[in-house]
Amino acid sequence: MSYKPAVPKGMRDFSPEVLEKRNHIFDTIRSVYTLYGYMPIETPSMELIETLTGKYGNEGDKLLFRVLNSGDFLKEVTGEELEQREANSLSAKIADKGLRYDLTVPFARYVVQHRNEITLPFKRYQIQPVWRADRPQKGRYREFFQCDADVIGSTSLTNELELIQIIDEVFSRLDVNVEIRINNRKILYGLAEAAGLADKFYPFTIAIDKLDKVGVTGVCQELESLGLHGEALKKLKLVFSMEGSNTERMSAIASMVTGSTTGMKGVEEMNALLDYHRITGTRNPLITDITLARGLNYYTGTIFEVTSSDVSIGSVCGGGRYDDLTGIFGMPGLSGVGISFGADRIYDVMQELGLFVQVMPNRPQVLMINFGGEDERYSLQALDALRRAGVAAEIYPDAARIKKQMTYADARKIPFVVLAGEQEREAGCLTLKNMLTGEQQRVTVEELVAVARQ
Amino acid sequence: MSYKPAVPKGMRDFSPEVLEKRNHIFDTIRSVYTLYGYMPIETPSMELIETLTGKYGNEGDKLLFRVLNSGDFLKEVTGEELEQREANSLSAKIADKGLRYDLTVPFARYVVQHRNEITLPFKRYQIQPVWRADRPQKGRYREFFQCDADVIGSTSLTNELELIQIIDEVFSRLDVNVEIRINNRKILYGLAEAAGLADKFYPFTIAIDKLDKVGVTGVCQELESLGLHGEALKKLKLVFSMEGSNTERMSAIASMVTGSTTGMKGVEEMNALLDYHRITGTRNPLITDITLARGLNYYTGTIFEVTSSDVSIGSVCGGGRYDDLTGIFGMPGLSGVGISFGADRIYDVMQELGLFVQVMPNRPQVLMINFGGEDERYSLQALDALRRAGVAAEIYPDAARIKKQMTYADARKIPFVVLAGEQEREAGCLTLKNMLTGEQQRVTVEELVAVARQ
Repeated sequence: MSYKPAVPKGMRDFSPEVLEKRNHIFDTIRSVYTLYGYMPIETPSMELIETLTGKYGNEGDKLLFRVLNSGDFLKEVTGEELEQREANSLSAKIADKGLRYDLTVPFARYVVQHRNEITLPFKRYQIQPVWRADRPQKGRYREFFQCDADVIGSTSLTNELELIQIIDEVFSRLDVNVEIRINNRKILYGLAEAAGLADKFYPFTIAIDKLDKVGVTGVCQELESLGLHGEALKKLKLVFSMEGSNTERMSAIASMVTGSTTGMKGVEEMNALLDYHRITGTRNPLITDITLARGLNYYTGTIFEVTSSDVSIGSVCGGGRYDDLTGIFGMPGLSGVGISFGADRIYDVMQELGLFVQVMPNRPQVLMINFGGEDERYSLQALDALRRAGVAAEIYPDAARIKKQMTYADARKIPFVVLAGEQEREAGCLTLKNMLTGEQQRVTVEELVAVARQ
Repeated sequence: MSYKPAVPKGMRDFSPEVLEKRNHIFDTIRSVYTLYGYMPIETPSMELIETLTGKYGNEGDKLLFRVLNSGDFLKEVTGEELEQREANSLSAKIADKGLRYDLTVPFARYVVQHRNEITLPFKRYQIQPVWRADRPQKGRYREFFQCDADVIGSTSLTNELELIQIIDEVFSRLDVNVEIRINNRKILYGLAEAAGLADKFYPFTIAIDKLDKVGVTGVCQELESLGLHGEALKKLKLVFSMEGSNTERMSAIASMVTGSTTGMKGVEEMNALLDYHRITGTRNPLITDITLARGLNYYTGTIFEVTSSDVSIGSVCGGGRYDDLTGIFGMPGLSGVGISFGADRIYDVMQELGLFVQVMPNRPQVLMINFGGEDERYSLQALDALRRAGVAAEIYPDAARIKKQMTYADARKIPFVVLAGEQEREAGCLTLKNMLTGEQQRVTVEELVAVARQ
């Protein structure tokens, strides 16, 4: 065999067993989104390249998968342009479409394009794959699913509460213990202002975001390099190791950002959200975490990050509020807030904790052994009765050796096998074998249906 | 607004309403596949370009969407190659991946690649989008879903029976009346042999396939151009207008292909399949149609084509048996048979016949009106109770004017609205308004749950 079949780097085939577990995660997320009034939309895999470029920073632009124009894609490229061998500018001429990089930008484009059909506030969810030409590594793929919910057109903090409840409900249903961390970008801005770094807010958040990786000392070094020293640095250092309840920490923070209007607004929002949270509560702990920054600079209010309490794997869900997502598409002033579940990481956590044991795969309950001829006809009739009763079942397609057919039932983990040869046919019954216990019994078709349905 | 948001040509956004109808079709197909013992797999959107090229003919190769290599894609292209401006050969150098064109080739690649994990016969289904750079027109898109089921590794005609039953069950559940047409490529080969056109079998099938479009006269003209004249042409002409039952037509055909071993094998297979069909029957008619050819030349046995009895829109499902699909990937001798549902056309048929009326969208059952302050807290508690009882519900996020909130409930077609202001709060009850009848009544939270659950 000269040709060795393979999939592209960083992409995956999903076999039935893995896929059913993944679908269990998607189905859970989907049903919780529905319970909270979110409606599904889908957008095309490809977007016009101008919809995508410039939205994810320079790094993001490099990671876009571009789709070559069909037909003679060189038609409009001049000889001069070819000679320059400039991959960037040439790609713009020969590839006018790209695969979506996330679900947020397509959602923003969707809202603007369909503004006249949409009722605001618009609550949508979207579960679709995205593509990034990232270097593949353990747990990082070039094609992966995102599971987003956003509400756009409302500034109310009840939306934030709802998203926290959704997170809590999804992970409760999946039996995964998590910590739901929240912060507010306005508080971070207040801290930056208090430290005299308002003009360096973006690098300031980037520095703080590294706390997990480089520790307090590392972050402080980075803050020093931004120009923070002495008392201001000391004060900020205290923030990283703050203790006490959510409310206690909020009052400590309030005293630090008291001079910043934005900072105080952030504290006010956090307190209001904590107040909402007291009405309904959550099964998983809600933790205010002032060091939570989240890289994406379009967040402007509450930010969320969820981590597993039992497996150290990074964030399994995240999101936040943005003041002006659709502005880039010519529709300014629409505030929104959203979250995104990371299905791949949730899968890994559940796999590691053995939480898929209870997931019942949709495999057939019954295999009819095929004895050929008249026996096969008899079995096909019983099989039809099973399916009409809603029992997933099949017949081995050929009258192969019984051992081979039994091995097939084993390999597919089919719990019941039915043998119907001449004897059974004459007696008008079937022999039912329980593959787990090895027990055999004679049953009627009705009895078979009743047993297989359990 | 200078920038007008749009999606690429031939691609579509799906709004909640359309998507829920589409999902109804997908869910129906999925559950019938499961009932018949088929297991789901998924393959990546992209395949290595060598997996795709040469599988769909020259025309197909032109319709592949190719994905530009990331980074400096010109790195390994020589100046000479650039100067030649040969789009075809250049694309091979700068794009080593392509988007899948159908689900059959990725399935064949999957089977060969995972041969050691798979138990044969392997019954898989796959519901995923495919991409073709076709010229978009009414009902033809550049991104669309295919819903395939195939069983590979068994030559038994019980598989064909099963697929016919699946077709029948899917369309019965969707309430779409169809005609299930079958033929056998071996019979077509027998007819070609009898007509002395065995060496022109492929153009022969192409000619016959056009019957719908060009009529008997047109087909006969085309057959004449292939070298068919006199008695032989006259005989074949009779085939196009054969009447009688399936069995009668099969015996007429048998007498025509009696000199062809392949032809007689085809008749034998058809008769055996018709015999199987008599065991279980179908609600929709099964019709042998000797003029059914299906373009794809990898089919070698039974072929299927399904048309709506009420809407003239072409085939809504099709498929057939192939003797050697995985041979191209180095694993010869595996026979398989499969079908594919065309979700877009089924959608159009159902839309035209008004069959979506019964599809209950997953929209929220209850909207809590938001009066702000203490009333909002009270409503949030009732809302929490509703959701814990599994009722999809939401609160309007802001304490906006009641009229605005009511308009929102109307636009979203939410059937129940709950008003809970100071009076209700003091009385420990809620006011429930039925949006359809306009009726209002005072209820407890428990009564609300009971009503909304219906």
